[in-house]
Order: sequence, then structure tokens, then C-alpha cells
Amino acid sequence: MSLPDTPAVLVDIDVARRNIRAFQAYADRHGIRVRPHIKTHKLPQMAELQLEAGAIGITCQKVTEAEAMVDGSPRIKDVLITYNILGEEKLARLARLNERVRLSVVADNTAVIDGLAARFAREGKPLTVLVECNTGADRCGVATPAEAAHLAERIAEAPGLRFGGLMTYPPADGAARVQSFMSEAKELIEAAGLEVPTITSGGTPSMMQAADVPVATEYRPGTYIYNDRSLVERGVATWDDCALTVLATVVSVPAENRAIIDAGSKVLTSDLLGLTGYGHVLGRDDIRIDQLSEEHGRLVSNGPIGLAVGDQVRIVPNHACVVTNMVDVVHIVDGDEPKEEWAVVARGHIL
Amino acid sequence: MSLPDTPAVLVDIDVARRNIRAFQAYADRHGIRVRPHIKTHKLPQMAELQLEAGAIGITCQKVTEAEAMVDGSPRIKDVLITYNILGEEKLARLARLNERVRLSVVADNTAVIDGLAARFAREGKPLTVLVECNTGADRCGVATPAEAAHLAERIAEAPGLRFGGLMTYPPADGAARVQSFMSEAKELIEAAGLEVPTITSGGTPSMMQAADVPVATEYRPGTYIYNDRSLVERGVATWDDCALTVLATVVSVPAENRAIIDAGSKVLTSDLLGLTGYGHVLGRDDIRIDQLSEEHGRLVSNGPIGLAVGDQVRIVPNHACVVTNMVDVVHIVDGDEPKEEWAVVARGHIL
Repeated sequence: MSLPDTPAVLVDIDVARRNIRAFQAYADRHGIRVRPHIKTHKLPQMAELQLEAGAIGITCQKVTEAEAMVDGSPRIKDVLITYNILGEEKLARLARLNERVRLSVVADNTAVIDGLAARFAREGKPLTVLVECNTGADRCGVATPAEAAHLAERIAEAPGLRFGGLMTYPPADGAARVQSFMSEAKELIEAAGLEVPTITSGGTPSMMQAADVPVATEYRPGTYIYNDRSLVERGVATWDDCALTVLATVVSVPAENRAIIDAGSKVLTSDLLGLTGYGHVLGRDDIRIDQLSEEHGRLVSNGPIGLAVGDQVRIVPNHACVVTNMVDVVHIVDGDEPKEEWAVVARGHIL
Repeated sequence: MSLPDTPAVLVDIDVARRNIRAFQAYADRHGIRVRPHIKTHKLPQMAELQLEAGAIGITCQKVTEAEAMVDGSPRIKDVLITYNILGEEKLARLARLNERVRLSVVADNTAVIDGLAARFAREGKPLTVLVECNTGADRCGVATPAEAAHLAERIAEAPGLRFGGLMTYPPADGAARVQSFMSEAKELIEAAGLEVPTITSGGTPSMMQAADVPVATEYRPGTYIYNDRSLVERGVATWDDCALTVLATVVSVPAENRAIIDAGSKVLTSDLLGLTGYGHVLGRDDIRIDQLSEEHGRLVSNGPIGLAVGDQVRIVPNHACVVTNMVDVVHIVDGDEPKEEWAVVARGHIL
């Protein structure tokens, strides 16, 4: 097999396997269950590698994403959707999925709980619902342990629902806050006579400190399987740990210090994650990708850029997960050797 | 038909028609040929509306995008691909496309011209090639009129190629520079005994000043069909001119001044185009979309946000073109009335 036409997303399967093993080994040592978030790869094959390594199930963000993953692998039997699910169409999809796998979702408000209950009261099998808690990321999640306990009781009392525990997506370095919030919430919920089967946290940047939150039983890393420039810049991965790269071709060298490649925001995306520039050209620390339009990327250097039209470069994107979502296929490679094309079956599933 | 499940991309067809007509009328008054860039809509049906209004053909950015458009409508018979095309696979696709429609491409360097010539010397029908000129956007394009003339001669002499003219994608307010660059290049090329059949410029922000570049014969507006927040902020469109909106549902109101919607960067994208925030909530000037993750958007207000879980909002994105690329279908609406679903057949075509 030859290298694919560009731009193309390459995934080094050995690097991905090594990344999976590294966190699983850490989690095993500390008795933490691993439930990887599939948003990073959106590939049933990668989920199977994670399950084989010891993951207990997967995390998805949307119902249709979960459907695509379950359709894609009979080995995916346990799915947590970390999202407030609302609306008749999504609830109907959720009910069908609940018949196929061990399924759980989250909720951070009574409107969502009541919607789930109204639907699942009619179903044969109850749906497991965890309470989402805000431990500092200020996205979704109840603000206090008392609110978490209140929602836990509401779930436990609702027909068709089963209380499954507590979930959070913390900020990086949020371990102390997660530990105190979850401990307090757990105590309140247990005092009300309920068990808290699962306490789940996540995020790749802090995953190697997951054991600093002993109250948590489960961890949901996502980006760790591929890594990306944002994680290298945070110091939690090296370029050698980056499994996903974008292969691009130089299509123009219009000035001595400037080259234009055939990968723009339609592949690399505009995600900055607090960084400057849109990715790292492997082996070329002197180059900045300072501008993207949809189909062009601009590479600039302080001196002569030393690239010719037709040259190829490999780029570690700022954010691997969003790049996966831009392409219909990824090219599995072993170093520089192309092996297979995998269809990104859970790409673009926004519902 | 009821409104679609969220998040969803809505396109108001009457607003799109009005936007098409407004620029076509301006161009007709000034004797400028219109060749819309389809990157904004990626829909053969919209290209047909543009052609019916008077456009002479379409512009695409990639070969596979052009293929999808031509496959999608028998009325698309004239395509300009404004890209340096390199590599055997793309050249083979280009040769097949050149048999189906009146096709032209651009080049800004000899490596691309030589590659095109090597392939098209073997073909029955020559390929039309324009020279791309840098008039200040500092992306692709030759730096001087003399270089443009040099490449024009190289194209004219190459077997299998036909010199088609000059192309630029100028910066906003680049009219004076485009006029002087193109006039000088044209003079040099004509002095060498060649005709310059087409001089084509583009860009929605300055389209209503297209006549300020009398040397140009053609204009390639893209975003004008939908408009977006970036164009409203530049003062060249109003919210009422925005044909494309994102319909989203509030899934969480975790604090009095904060609401979370089910549209994140997988729909709105992280494109900022120099703006602050990720879109405009129609009817709610007080709200900022200050943060996106893949599947969540965070809405904040200085006071109580006044939204409840389950409420729906319509958002004008920063950049309409990139939103089109995120979804498999758009929902055609007439005001608030849903009409049809159109598959975005030229979405994701990066080759």
C-alpha cells in the first residue's frame, strides 16, 4: 500500500495500543475502572482494543454516536452517554438502545429526569441515570452536593429509572475539588438510604492523577489514545506518543519563508485550546502554522522555509478528537507503512 | 413537517434567493460575470438557483468537491477549481472531469503547471489554467505581475494546457491593489502575444465594490448566499439577510446567568474570524456564546439568562461555510416552516 492522497489523517496503531496500555496499567494498579470516551476515535475497532486491554465499557456523548458504535461492534455491551437527553426522538432511540446494551445516561436537572421517566415508565427495562456534578469546569452539572443528592432521590423514585451514581467532567487539576464534592454528595445520598454504585471522572490531562480521587470508582479518558499538540504542550505526552497525524502536501511556496499546504480548517479545524497556531509540523520546530482557511494551511518560518512544492509534511493537530470528526476515513499506519483504511462510522453524529 | 431534532442547520430558502438576486443584479448592472463559490452551501440545488439567476458557472476548491457538484446537477457545466492541483490521483480525476464539463484550474508555480501538462498532454481535450496572483492576502499566488506573465507563457507553451487568464482571492478592501496588479500583468501578457480571457476576483465582504476593479471580468462570491455573523459584524449584511441558522435546544441551566445548548464545535465550529464568541443568538443581544466543546455550547448573560431546559434558540454562526461542512443534511425552511431536507453532497470532500 502507498501513502494516501492528501490531506489524510493517519493513525499509528502501535502508538495507540501503547497509549491504551499505559493508562490501563495505571488504572489497574489503583483499582480504577476505565471507560474510555470514544469521541477521540469514533471507531468500533479502537473501542475493541480498549475493551481487550481491560476497559469495562465505553463513553459516548450523543445517542446517535452510541448507536453507531454499538452497530459497529458486538463486543460493545456497556455504554455511558454523558449527556442530558431531551426530546421524543432521542428518547425513542435511547429506549431501543437500552434493550441492546447495558446503558446509562446522566442528568443535571429535573426536566431531563422527568422526560426520561415519562418515557422509561413505559419500557420493560429501567434506564440507569447518574447525576452530573459541576466540579469547576462550569459547563453542565449541579452546583452542590445537596443538589446532587436531591436529584439522586428523584431518579430513585422515578418509575422506569435506576440511580446509577455520580459523574463529573472536571477541570484539569481538579482532583481535590472532585474528591470533596463527590465524598460529600455520596454521604448525603447514602444517608438517604441509596447506594452510589459508580462515581466517574474523566479527562486525559489529569488521568495519571486519577488515584488522587479515591472516592471515584471509574475514569473516562478520551484523547489519551491518540494524544495531540495540546497534551504535548501541557507536558503530559511527547510527540512520539501522538498516534494521530495529518499528512499534507505543499502546494505552493509563494515566498522564501512561507509555504502553503493542502490541509486547512476542514481537516485540522480551528480549535486552538489556548495555543497559538494550528498544529505542529513534525521535525520542524521552526515552523508555525499561523493561518488556516478551509482548504489551505499557511506555514511560516523566521528564515527560509526549505520546502518545495510536492513535499509532504506530517502535522500533529492541536486537538485530535475534532480532526477525527472531519474525515470519513482514517488511514491506519505502522510507522510510515500504510496498513488499512478504517471508516469513521461514528463521525458527524450530532443527535 | 415539524422542526427537526436538534442541533440542526436551517436554511431559509427565500433569504438565500434574495441574497443571490441582490448580487446578481449588481453584477449585471456593471457587466461583471458571476461565478459563485459553492464552498458555502455544497448543494447542487443552490448552485442551480445561482445559475438560474444568471451565474456563468461555479467555483470549487477541491477536485472531489467539483465531482460531487457535477454529479449532483446536469445544469452545472462550467467549473473553476481555484486550487493548485498536484499528484497522480487528483490529476486523473481532473482529466475525467475535464471530459464532462468546461473546466478550469489555477496554478501559481511551475511544478504545478508541469504536472498538469504531463497529464493533459496525453488527453484529447486541453485543460484551461489561470495564474493565481497574490494581491495581499498572502496565501497562494505569484508575488508580481512579471511572475504572472512568466507563468502565463509557460502555460500557453505547455502541451495539453490552455492559458485562461488571471485569478486572485484578495483581502477585503483590496480593490486598488487588484486593479493595479491585474492591469500590469495583463499588459505584460498581452505584450507577449497572449490573450487574457478572464480576470477573476472574489470575496463577499467587498463584492458590492467589485466594479471598482474594472480590469476584472468575473467575481466569485461565496458566503453572500447565506451571510453570517462575521459579515453582519463587518456591516455588509443584517441579521435578516442571514439564511443559515443553527437550531439548538437548551439542555441545562446550571446557573442563573448560564445555559448550555446541544450545539458545540461539531456544528458551530471554532472559527472566530476575528470575533469574540461563537455565534449570535437571534433576538438575544445580551447573550454571549463564550465557550464551545464538541457537543456543548455555553451561553452566558450579565443578568438572569431567562432560558429553561427544553427551550430552543436559533444561532447565526460566525462563519456559515464551515458549518455547512459539519452536517450531512440541512433543513430547508421558509421562515419558521420546515420544507425539505437536502443532503450536503459536497460535504467533507477534502481531496
